[in-house]
Amino acid sequence: MPISRIAIGSREEATHPSALKAALAEFISTLIFVFAGQGSGMAFASLTSGGGTTPAGLIAAAIAHAFALFVAVSIAANISGGHVNPAVTFGAFVGGNITLLRGILYWIAQLLGSTVACLLLRFSTGGLATGSFALSGVSVWNALVLEIVMTFGLVYTVYATAVDPKRGNLGTIAPIAIGFIVGANILVGGAFDGASMNPAVSFGPALVSWAWSDHWVYWVGPLIGGGLAGIIYEVIFISHTHEQLPSTEY
Amino acid sequence: MPISRIAIGSREEATHPSALKAALAEFISTLIFVFAGQGSGMAFASLTSGGGTTPAGLIAAAIAHAFALFVAVSIAANISGGHVNPAVTFGAFVGGNITLLRGILYWIAQLLGSTVACLLLRFSTGGLATGSFALSGVSVWNALVLEIVMTFGLVYTVYATAVDPKRGNLGTIAPIAIGFIVGANILVGGAFDGASMNPAVSFGPALVSWAWSDHWVYWVGPLIGGGLAGIIYEVIFISHTHEQLPSTEY
Amino acid sequence: MPISRIAIGSREEATHPSALKAALAEFISTLIFVFAGQGSGMAFASLTSGGGTTPAGLIAAAIAHAFALFVAVSIAANISGGHVNPAVTFGAFVGGNITLLRGILYWIAQLLGSTVACLLLRFSTGGLATGSFALSGVSVWNALVLEIVMTFGLVYTVYATAVDPKRGNLGTIAPIAIGFIVGANILVGGAFDGASMNPAVSFGPALVSWAWSDHWVYWVGPLIGGGLAGIIYEVIFISHTHEQLPSTEY
Amino acid sequence: MPISRIAIGSREEATHPSALKAALAEFISTLIFVFAGQGSGMAFASLTSGGGTTPAGLIAAAIAHAFALFVAVSIAANISGGHVNPAVTFGAFVGGNITLLRGILYWIAQLLGSTVACLLLRFSTGGLATGSFALSGVSVWNALVLEIVMTFGLVYTVYATAVDPKRGNLGTIAPIAIGFIVGANILVGGAFDGASMNPAVSFGPALVSWAWSDHWVYWVGPLIGGGLAGIIYEVIFISHTHEQLPSTEY
Repeated sequence: MPISRIAIGSREEATHPSALKAALAEFISTLIFVFAGQGSGMAFASLTSGGGTTPAGLIAAAIAHAFALFVAVSIAANISGGHVNPAVTFGAFVGGNITLLRGILYWIAQLLGSTVACLLLRFSTGGLATGSFALSGVSVWNALVLEIVMTFGLVYTVYATAVDPKRGNLGTIAPIAIGFIVGANILVGGAFDGASMNPAVSFGPALVSWAWSDHWVYWVGPLIGGGLAGIIYEVIFISHTHEQLPSTEY
Repeated sequence: MPISRIAIGSREEATHPSALKAALAEFISTLIFVFAGQGSGMAFASLTSGGGTTPAGLIAAAIAHAFALFVAVSIAANISGGHVNPAVTFGAFVGGNITLLRGILYWIAQLLGSTVACLLLRFSTGGLATGSFALSGVSVWNALVLEIVMTFGLVYTVYATAVDPKRGNLGTIAPIAIGFIVGANILVGGAFDGASMNPAVSFGPALVSWAWSDHWVYWVGPLIGGGLAGIIYEVIFISHTHEQLPSTEY
Repeated sequence: MPISRIAIGSREEATHPSALKAALAEFISTLIFVFAGQGSGMAFASLTSGGGTTPAGLIAAAIAHAFALFVAVSIAANISGGHVNPAVTFGAFVGGNITLLRGILYWIAQLLGSTVACLLLRFSTGGLATGSFALSGVSVWNALVLEIVMTFGLVYTVYATAVDPKRGNLGTIAPIAIGFIVGANILVGGAFDGASMNPAVSFGPALVSWAWSDHWVYWVGPLIGGGLAGIIYEVIFISHTHEQLPSTEY
Repeated sequence: MPISRIAIGSREEATHPSALKAALAEFISTLIFVFAGQGSGMAFASLTSGGGTTPAGLIAAAIAHAFALFVAVSIAANISGGHVNPAVTFGAFVGGNITLLRGILYWIAQLLGSTVACLLLRFSTGGLATGSFALSGVSVWNALVLEIVMTFGLVYTVYATAVDPKRGNLGTIAPIAIGFIVGANILVGGAFDGASMNPAVSFGPALVSWAWSDHWVYWVGPLIGGGLAGIIYEVIFISHTHEQLPSTEY
């Protein structure tokens, strides 16, 4: 899951076949991820006649997102780096691991993938509502901090297991780690703000259901958390390493 | 989990010991997979006196299928490629990764494995019905799209993690990814059409229970989805690679 | 997880330090596995005031056994081969992968580990009963077939992922596969006969609770299933390979 | 996940940049782990209006801790060794795998990470109580043995999969094993004493909620269990190996 370390983009780069292929991979991965994640919530709503979230519902959401994100990251890893999340792309950008142009291309692909997933879900469930992310018993400031902390954990995990040149064998299980930290965090945040950690995951349902209240929280929180993780990991755990030989003593 | 890239078969190929061994491996893997997957549904029906699906029931089905398919793919991977699914075999065929004759042999083995699993389940549960796949609140067209999208995700995952020559370390966790995307999709589709993604999984219970209503959906959907994934992945992400040197820049 | 391929034992072998260390590793692994597996059932009984099995109870049992067996196999893999199960040891014996003497040593260690786990569970839960395996709505012949099929799947998995010289990268995830097939099968058999697949798992609770009705089923079933898997895998998928060069065509 | 095998520390070592970086990694990992683990309990309490633990609640706790600890260990593995637990650090110390000074630094980082996680949880859930560990139907002596056995299993797993020089490919899945043994044990101990196995996990909630009854159990139990595992594994399975050539016969 190497991510190219080039900070300046160009028109040629963005239209280069490999850039378009990477964007297509992001589109398909995000579609598959959101189809399973958002769809599992719709199945829960259907089985419980729209009843409120229960512990079993949180577990189903956690497993659906953990398994599907693990797979979505895996299948795009060697093509696009397997971001599947605008906050991960933003974290890669602030850490200098992706260019602005390619990052924008990824964002478009991710938002489109999420939207198409929601349209397919609506059709294939016979017209059920896709639902949308909303606060439950917490203020926007609470939710903002919640999204910041959870997305920090997610993007830090991406950096430590998939970007860090010292990751070694960890790279083999990186997609599992990335999927499972989201699953774990859903068991926390799902009860309070839906636990997005991913603007694309919130955007598709909001667009298709046209429900935008507090929507900014699901962009600002993940971008702050992901950006912080990218900067901190890059500056403290990667950059310093460049100045010295690989260290085996600690 | 390499899959031979030969498109033309011959009688010798199909009766070659390694082809028969591969078919035997597919038979055993499908038997083990369907025994756990279908059997977990029978256990749920038994514990709830045949009550309708609940979130806990979906979670049990998702875990049983995810774990058992991961194992079924693993144990056949080095012998037959670990298809365990006519739609995966079809996707491999349209992508030019298996011959027609061997593909037919695999289909027979998979359908037989599923049927024997259902017979064993009926006996070892003291005669309980194996149940069968049916639509729940959706039209056949809804279910068809549902099966297409879910199976597309499954076969795309097979290609990206197990067939793609650039898969690298991903190959190590490929069987887990293949099992877990099915687990995630069951949390979506299980409530609406049983979430088969696999004609063999639907065929065995239908034959043993002699319940064929809407059965074609569970063949046509997975074959379209799997075929599409095979063509798209092969043409866009594998074939183009052949024309150029392995690219590390993106 | 290599297993020595020597069929004849000797007194020296059995008292050789590495044999005793291997037995100790089997003892500790079985203790850890049974503590989590049997203990999770006691926790369920405590939380539900001894109520009958429910889908949530089966899920808890499946996860506890899947996770704990994966770990138990991992931590003994490089010391004893990570059997943690008399049926696996028997399957290794009939396939010619362990000597009789060492196999007996393993059995003693496994049965002892299970018994000590039950005693520790009884004390640390303030004296709760450990429960024991029993049939639920099925005859002993149904349960016998159930145990045969499930244990066949388990030992076949051990052979395909951990013993087969052609296993390749699969070896890395072998302990996960071994744990997870047990988890999947518990979601089937747990409702009907407790889903043991492992005589040590049944023996400890039976001894500590002194409850032996139908106990023979939990020995005969797993030993037949495990023995069959060992013979079939060895004869068809391993031995034939010895006669020819490693085949990459299929 | 190598751990330096030096038994004597010095002031320079503790203030060496790599020691401080390692402590920072332990702080972040423990924060992420406790946020998910403790937070999932708060979400359960919120969804059930503070109702008692149920099987579904135990499953949610098991998955949250298993997934999050796997990730927390992964992301610190190459920086600090991925302890994320004072009992693991203590086990590493008694086995001679970390110096006293560095061990103290790790402890401070872990306790701080847990405390900050609890403060963040309290804010981001709109002021909910973090809860704390308590005995449920068992005596302190029962709970002490429970914590000893469970933590023995955890630290033994760390040694066998991450410290043992003979671990081989197991090292790749070590963080998963470490996370999952905790998940399995929570399904046992969660109903009786909360299943801590980690003094940092108990300390943060106790400090923030100022609830210290029986708190010593959650320190003494894990430290005895972890210390025993470190000594036993080091003396029996690692040290003896040093005296002879790597043995492949068993």
